[in-house]
Amino acid sequence: MSRITETSPLLAALARKPHERTPVWFMRQAGRYLPGYQAVRAKTEFLTLCKTPELAAEVTVEPLETFGVDAVIIFSDILVPLEAMGLEVVFGDRGPSMGDPLRTRADIDRLRIPDPVAETGFVMDVIRAVQDRVAGRVPVIGFAGAPWTLACYALEGSPSRTFAAAKQMLYRAPGDLHALMEKIADTVTAYLRAQVEAGAQVLQLFDSWGGMLAHEAFHEFSLAYCRRILEGLDGCGVPRILFIKGAGTHLESIAKLVRETGTECVAIDDGIPPARARQVLGGHCAIQGNLPPEALFAPVEDLRRRTRELLEAFRGEPGHVFNLGHGITPPTPIPHVRAVVEEVQAWRAGSASE
Amino acid sequence: MSRITETSPLLAALARKPHERTPVWFMRQAGRYLPGYQAVRAKTEFLTLCKTPELAAEVTVEPLETFGVDAVIIFSDILVPLEAMGLEVVFGDRGPSMGDPLRTRADIDRLRIPDPVAETGFVMDVIRAVQDRVAGRVPVIGFAGAPWTLACYALEGSPSRTFAAAKQMLYRAPGDLHALMEKIADTVTAYLRAQVEAGAQVLQLFDSWGGMLAHEAFHEFSLAYCRRILEGLDGCGVPRILFIKGAGTHLESIAKLVRETGTECVAIDDGIPPARARQVLGGHCAIQGNLPPEALFAPVEDLRRRTRELLEAFRGEPGHVFNLGHGITPPTPIPHVRAVVEEVQAWRAGSASE
Repeated sequence: MSRITETSPLLAALARKPHERTPVWFMRQAGRYLPGYQAVRAKTEFLTLCKTPELAAEVTVEPLETFGVDAVIIFSDILVPLEAMGLEVVFGDRGPSMGDPLRTRADIDRLRIPDPVAETGFVMDVIRAVQDRVAGRVPVIGFAGAPWTLACYALEGSPSRTFAAAKQMLYRAPGDLHALMEKIADTVTAYLRAQVEAGAQVLQLFDSWGGMLAHEAFHEFSLAYCRRILEGLDGCGVPRILFIKGAGTHLESIAKLVRETGTECVAIDDGIPPARARQVLGGHCAIQGNLPPEALFAPVEDLRRRTRELLEAFRGEPGHVFNLGHGITPPTPIPHVRAVVEEVQAWRAGSASE
Repeated sequence: MSRITETSPLLAALARKPHERTPVWFMRQAGRYLPGYQAVRAKTEFLTLCKTPELAAEVTVEPLETFGVDAVIIFSDILVPLEAMGLEVVFGDRGPSMGDPLRTRADIDRLRIPDPVAETGFVMDVIRAVQDRVAGRVPVIGFAGAPWTLACYALEGSPSRTFAAAKQMLYRAPGDLHALMEKIADTVTAYLRAQVEAGAQVLQLFDSWGGMLAHEAFHEFSLAYCRRILEGLDGCGVPRILFIKGAGTHLESIAKLVRETGTECVAIDDGIPPARARQVLGGHCAIQGNLPPEALFAPVEDLRRRTRELLEAFRGEPGHVFNLGHGITPPTPIPHVRAVVEEVQAWRAGSASE
C-alpha cells in the first residue's frame, strides 16, 4: 500500500500537503442510487450484505468503477457495533433499527464491550476484500457512528425526529446515559483500531445527530465522546475525519477539539459557509465538504457551476476534500454524480480565471 | 387593553424597557401534557378544536390558569393558512398532514391567497374569545408558520426527517418553489395582520425547519421570506418574535435582518449558548429562550438550578423573555413546569448573590 500513500490526492489533502488536484468522494456513495447495488440487494437482505465480505466489497468498489472517485468507503451499517454489544438489530422498510431498545440501567449494564475481531470480524474481512479489489488505486476509508448517534439508536429504536427518549434520559438520568456512552465509546475505539489493522487507510467518525443537542449537552455528550475516540485513535497511523452534523453553531469548539487531538480533518455539513469553515478551521486541519446532496438534482449545468463555485471557495486551502454536506439520497441521477466528479477532477487551483 | 400594555413584563421585555422581573411563557404551552386539554380532545377532533373558538380559547388559557404564565398563545395549527389556500389538511395519529401534497407547478398555480377574515375567521374568533377570558391579565400572542416551514408541509405532506421533496424542488425547479413561497408569504402576512386586528398583542413567526437548509438556500428560502413577512408587518403596532430553529450558524445574518426590519425579538433554540446570543443580538432586540424542553424531565431541584443559571446568563439584558428552546413535549410533568414558572417569577436581577 506504499504506492497509494505517495500518489493519493485524498491522503495528500488530509495531510495538507501540496498536491495536483482536489480529491472527491461522496458520503453514502455506495448505495441505492447505483444499479449494481440494486442488483445485489434484489437477492440479498441488507444485514446479510453487510456480513458477506465479497458482496459488501463489490458494492463498496462500484463508485470507484463507475465514477473514478478518489476513495472508497466500506459498505457497512453504523449499527454493527451495537449488535456486537448485545442489542438486536432488525432491518425493516424504513432501514435498520433496534429490535429491543434500551429502557433501563440494567439494560445498559448488560451490554458488553465486544472484541472487534472476534465479534465483528466480517467488517475486517470486508476491508481486506475491498483492498484486494481496489489494488492500491485509491485509499479505503473505514468508519463508525459516534457514541451520541449510536446511543440515540440504542434508546430510540429507530431514527427519530425528536430523539425524545435519548434526550429525556440525558436530563432524567445523565449518569445512566454516560454509562452507556462510555461503553459505546470504548467499543467504537477498538472497532476503528481493528479496521486500521485490517487495512483501512482513513477513518471517519459520524455523529449524525450531534446537532440535535442543546449547547451544554452537545459538549458533554457529543463532543466529549468524539474526543475520547479521537484520542483513543491517536497514533493509529491513519488520518481521522470527524463529521458532526448540524453543529455549525459549535464550530469553534470543534476547532479546539481538533487542535488538541491533532485530528486531521473535519467534515462540514451544508449549513456551514465555506468561508466560515476556512476562518475557524483553516490551518488546523483539512476540511471536507460541503455540496448539498440535493444539489445533485439541479440541472447539470447549474450543478457544474455550483461545483466550481465550491472549489473556488476553497482555493488556496491545501486540505480541501470535495464531498457532500451529508449522504447521497436514493433517487440521485447517476449522470449528475459523474458530472461533479468530472468537474472536481478537471479543476486546477493554478489554472483558474482569476 | 391599555392596562396590560403598562404592566405586562412580556411587553416591557419585548420593548427592552426596565421592568421588575423576567417574563415567562412556553412554546406549545397549551397541549397534550395538560389535563384540561386532554379532556377537551377526548371529545373533540384536533381540527374541530382549532375551529371551535370557545374550545380553542379554553385550551389557550389553561396554562395561564394553571401556572400563571406571563402570556397566552392562541391554540391553533400552523397548517390553517395552507388549508385556506386550497390544500387539504387531515389529522392522523402522527399529527396534522396534507391530504394531497403539491407535486407540480400547476398545483402551485392553483393555490389561492385567501382573505384571512373571510376564510380563516375562526382564528380571529379564537383571539376574541381568548381576550374575553384573559380580561387583560396578560398579552395574547398570535402566530403563524414561516413560508419555508409551510412549504415543507405542502410539498412533503407530513413532517419529514429529510425534507427530500422540498429540497429537491429547491434545486430542480427553484422558480416553482419561489412561486409557492411568495404565495405563502403573502397569505401569512395578511393572516398575521388580521390576528392583530382581532386583538393579538404580540406575533411570533415560526420557521421550525429553516435550519435544515444549506447555507445559501437558508438565505434565499428561509431568511428572505421571513424578511418579507416582517417587513409586511411593519407598523402593525405589535412586537414581532422571529423563531428560526436550528439556525445558530446564521445568527449574524438573523441579527442583520432584525436590525434592518426593526424586529423586536428573536427566539433562540437550545443549541445557541446565551452568551453568543447576547453578543450577536444584544442591544438590537429582545431575546427569547432557551431552556431545552427535555430539561423539564430533570429532577426538580436540578431543573430549578438550570432555570436560575439561564436567568443569570441573561442578567442585565432587559429584553430577556424566558422560554424553551422549542415546544413542550407531551409527557412533560406538570409540577416541573410549575417549578420553572415559580423560579423565573421569583428571580430578581437586582437581588442575586453576586
